[in-house]
Amino acid sequence: MTKDNKKYSKVSKAFKLKKTSLLAPKKGFPDLPIINGVKFSATHAGIKKQKQLDLMLVELRPGTTIAGALTKSSTCSAPVKWCRNNLDYQNSSDLPLAIIVNSGNANTFTGESGTVAVSKTALEVAKCIGSNPNNVFVASTGVIGETLPVDKILKKISKLKENLKKENAKEAALAILTTDTFPKGTHRAVNIDGKEIKISGFAKGSGMVAPNMATMLVFIFTDVPINKKVLQEIVNQNICTTFNAITVDSDTSTSDTLLVAATGTVDIDPIISIQDSRANLFRTALESLMQELAKLVVRDGEGATKFIEINVRGAKDNESALLIGKAIANSPLVKTAIAGEDPNWGRVIMAIGKEGIPISAEKLKISFGKYPIAEAGNVSKTYSEKEVKEYMRGKEITINVDLEMKSGTATIWTCDLTHEYIAINADYRS
Amino acid sequence: MTKDNKKYSKVSKAFKLKKTSLLAPKKGFPDLPIINGVKFSATHAGIKKQKQLDLMLVELRPGTTIAGALTKSSTCSAPVKWCRNNLDYQNSSDLPLAIIVNSGNANTFTGESGTVAVSKTALEVAKCIGSNPNNVFVASTGVIGETLPVDKILKKISKLKENLKKENAKEAALAILTTDTFPKGTHRAVNIDGKEIKISGFAKGSGMVAPNMATMLVFIFTDVPINKKVLQEIVNQNICTTFNAITVDSDTSTSDTLLVAATGTVDIDPIISIQDSRANLFRTALESLMQELAKLVVRDGEGATKFIEINVRGAKDNESALLIGKAIANSPLVKTAIAGEDPNWGRVIMAIGKEGIPISAEKLKISFGKYPIAEAGNVSKTYSEKEVKEYMRGKEITINVDLEMKSGTATIWTCDLTHEYIAINADYRS
Repeated sequence: MTKDNKKYSKVSKAFKLKKTSLLAPKKGFPDLPIINGVKFSATHAGIKKQKQLDLMLVELRPGTTIAGALTKSSTCSAPVKWCRNNLDYQNSSDLPLAIIVNSGNANTFTGESGTVAVSKTALEVAKCIGSNPNNVFVASTGVIGETLPVDKILKKISKLKENLKKENAKEAALAILTTDTFPKGTHRAVNIDGKEIKISGFAKGSGMVAPNMATMLVFIFTDVPINKKVLQEIVNQNICTTFNAITVDSDTSTSDTLLVAATGTVDIDPIISIQDSRANLFRTALESLMQELAKLVVRDGEGATKFIEINVRGAKDNESALLIGKAIANSPLVKTAIAGEDPNWGRVIMAIGKEGIPISAEKLKISFGKYPIAEAGNVSKTYSEKEVKEYMRGKEITINVDLEMKSGTATIWTCDLTHEYIAINADYRS
Repeated sequence: MTKDNKKYSKVSKAFKLKKTSLLAPKKGFPDLPIINGVKFSATHAGIKKQKQLDLMLVELRPGTTIAGALTKSSTCSAPVKWCRNNLDYQNSSDLPLAIIVNSGNANTFTGESGTVAVSKTALEVAKCIGSNPNNVFVASTGVIGETLPVDKILKKISKLKENLKKENAKEAALAILTTDTFPKGTHRAVNIDGKEIKISGFAKGSGMVAPNMATMLVFIFTDVPINKKVLQEIVNQNICTTFNAITVDSDTSTSDTLLVAATGTVDIDPIISIQDSRANLFRTALESLMQELAKLVVRDGEGATKFIEINVRGAKDNESALLIGKAIANSPLVKTAIAGEDPNWGRVIMAIGKEGIPISAEKLKISFGKYPIAEAGNVSKTYSEKEVKEYMRGKEITINVDLEMKSGTATIWTCDLTHEYIAINADYRS
C-alpha cells in the first residue's frame, strides 16, 4: 500500500514541516458568510489515523443547482466518476442535495470495492436527508490504492445529519485537508438587481497540483438563483483563468473536484441565459473568488518559499501563451533558481523554447518585477544584476514575458522547488 | 549574466559534487577504436575559467557524409541554427569537413554577435583545413545569455589543426563536458560484406536533459560508405528509441546537437538505399551505440542515485506509450518516491493518468522489476511490500506498465530526483 499520509505525519513529527507555510495569508481563515440554503457538519470518522476531522457533509436546499469541473486524469477516482455522472443528471427541484467528502483515502484504483463504496455512501446520505443518490455528490482525497473503509463513513452519516449548521463552514474546510498546512477559504459579494448575492468557498491542495480542467477539492456556495446550464458555462469559462492556471509540481491529481452550488434563496429573477448581463456580473465575482482560492493552494505548495506569478503577453494566441507560461512554471531549473534567489534568466529563455512554439528572439522581452532583463535578442542594456538579486530575495516574484507577436495572454501561478519538497516526498519511507 | 558554470564549480569545491556519479560505469572511458578519415585535437582556450579542456576540433576526410538531429527548441542557439543550415547543404565530395565545439558558453540568446561568432569560427576553420564554411559544423554548450569570447577560439584554431591525431578521441570527449562527472563514450563493430565496419561515439549531458528529437552534444564517427540521405533516415529512425527516450529533469536544452559522420574508408559498395539490407545491419549497430550513450547521459543525471527504466506495453500506439512513459519519468512525485526507496505505486497510477490518455484500469498491470504490483483494477494478490522495498534499495529500478489494449510500446530511461539536484541548482547563487 502507498501511504503518503502516514509518511507526511511522520515527516511532520520529525521535522515540524506541518508548521504553516511561509506564504500563508497573515489574517488566517476568514469568517465565511452564511449562505441561505447551505448547512455543514464535520467529524472524525477514523480514516485518518490521527484524531483529526476527516469527514464532512453539506446539505443543500431543494432547487439548488450544481455545476462543476473534474480531473481529466484517465486514472481518476471512483468518486470523480460518480460526480461526472451526477453533474449530467437533471436534479429534481423538490428534493434536497448533498456533498459528502472524506480525507485520508482517495478511493482511487480500488476496483469494484471502490465503486460500491461510493454508491453505498450516496444511498445512505440520500436516505438520511430524504433524497435520491443522484442528488448526492461524493469526493475523497488521500492515499491512492488503498481500500476505503466505507463502514467507518456509513456509521457517521446520521450523526453528521443531526449536527448540520449554517455556521459550520470552517469545520467542513478543515475536514478535507491532507498535506495542507492551513485551511483555504474566501468569499465575495456582488449586487444584482439591488440585492446582495453572496459567494463563499473553500479548497484543499498542496502537492500533486497541476489541475487539468479542474483542481484539488474546491466547494463553493452562493445564493444566486441561476439555472444549471448557465452556471456550468460560467464555471467552464472561469476554470481557465483560475485553477487551470496554477501548478505546484506538474503532477495532476486523480481526485480533482470543483463543485459550485447555487441555492437561489435571494429574491431576484433567476438567471437563465449566459447573455443576461447579470450572468457576467456573477461570473466576474465568482472568477475573483476562484482565483483567490487557486492562489491559496499555490501558497501552500509542498516546501514552497516563494510565490511566483508568470505573465505571458503578445503570444500568437491564448493557448500558446498558456503553454509557454506552464513550461516556465513547471521547469525544475527555473523553480530551483528562484528557490536559490538566483536571477538565472537563461533558464527562462530555455523554458520559453522547450515546447517548440515559434517565437522571435529579436522581439522577446523579459522582466523580473519592474526590472528589464532581456530585449532585442540580448540582455537588457539597463540590466543590473545587483538590483535583480535584491528583488529575488522577496517572497513574491513576478516574471513577465512579452513575445510581441500577437495578443495572446496567460497568467500562471506557481511556487519554487526546494529541499523541503524532496524531504516531504522522498526522505521518509512508508 | 547567468553563470551556471561558475556556480557548479563553487558547488563542486564546497560539496565535492563533482565526484563521479554513483551510476557511472565501473570500467571508465573505453579505448575508442581509430576510425580512418577522422582526426581529433583539443585545448584549453580560456572559455572555462578553470584550466580545463574547453575547445575541440574534428577533421573529416573529403567525401565524408554527415547526418544529424538538432533541438526543436524555439530559443535554440546560434550554432544549432548554423548546423541546421549545413545539414541541408549538399557537401562537395572533394573537400574536407570539420566539427568544432566549445564548452563553457552556449552562445544562446546572444543576438547578432552570436551569429557573427559562429560564422567567423567556421570561416577560420575552413581556411585552416582548406575547405568552405558550409563544411564546418559548430556546437557550443555552457552558460546561456553571455557573449561568446570568439577571439579566444579563433586564435587557437591553427594550433588545433597542427595537433590533429587519429588517437585523440578521449581529449575531444573531455573538452565538451560541462556539469558532467565523467566522459561518455562507446563503440560498436558490424560485419558488412565481409568487412568490419567500426562505429565510435561520445556524448555530454547531465542537467537540462529532455531531448526533443535530438540530445545534448553527441558526436559519432564511422567508416561505412553511405550516402547522406540514407544516413539521415537512419538517424531519424534511431533517435526515437535512444536520445528521445531519456529525460533527467524534463527541461529541453537550447543546444542539443547530434552529428554522425561516415568517412566511407571501408572498401565495400556504398549504401545508397534504405531498402538495402546492409542499411538495416548498420542501423541496428548504430542504434545500439546511440542507446548506450543515451543511457550514460542518464547515469550522469544531476544528483542521480538510481537508474530507472520504464517499459510501457499494450498501448493504443507507440505514441501513447511514449507519452505515458514520459509522464511517469518526468513526475517529481514518482522520482522522489524512488529516491526515497519507497514502493509508492499510487504515484505511478497518478502519472499514468495525468496525460488523460484513455486506459482501462481493469486491464492495467504494473510490476516493479519481477514483482507484480497492480492488476485487475486493484493491488496484486501476490504483492509483498517487504519484497518490493528490498528491490527498491538497488541502484537499477525497472517499472513495467502493461495497458493490455493494443500493441504500442515504449522504453524510457531516467533517474531519481534528490537533494543533490536541488543543491546543484538552487543552493549556490551566481
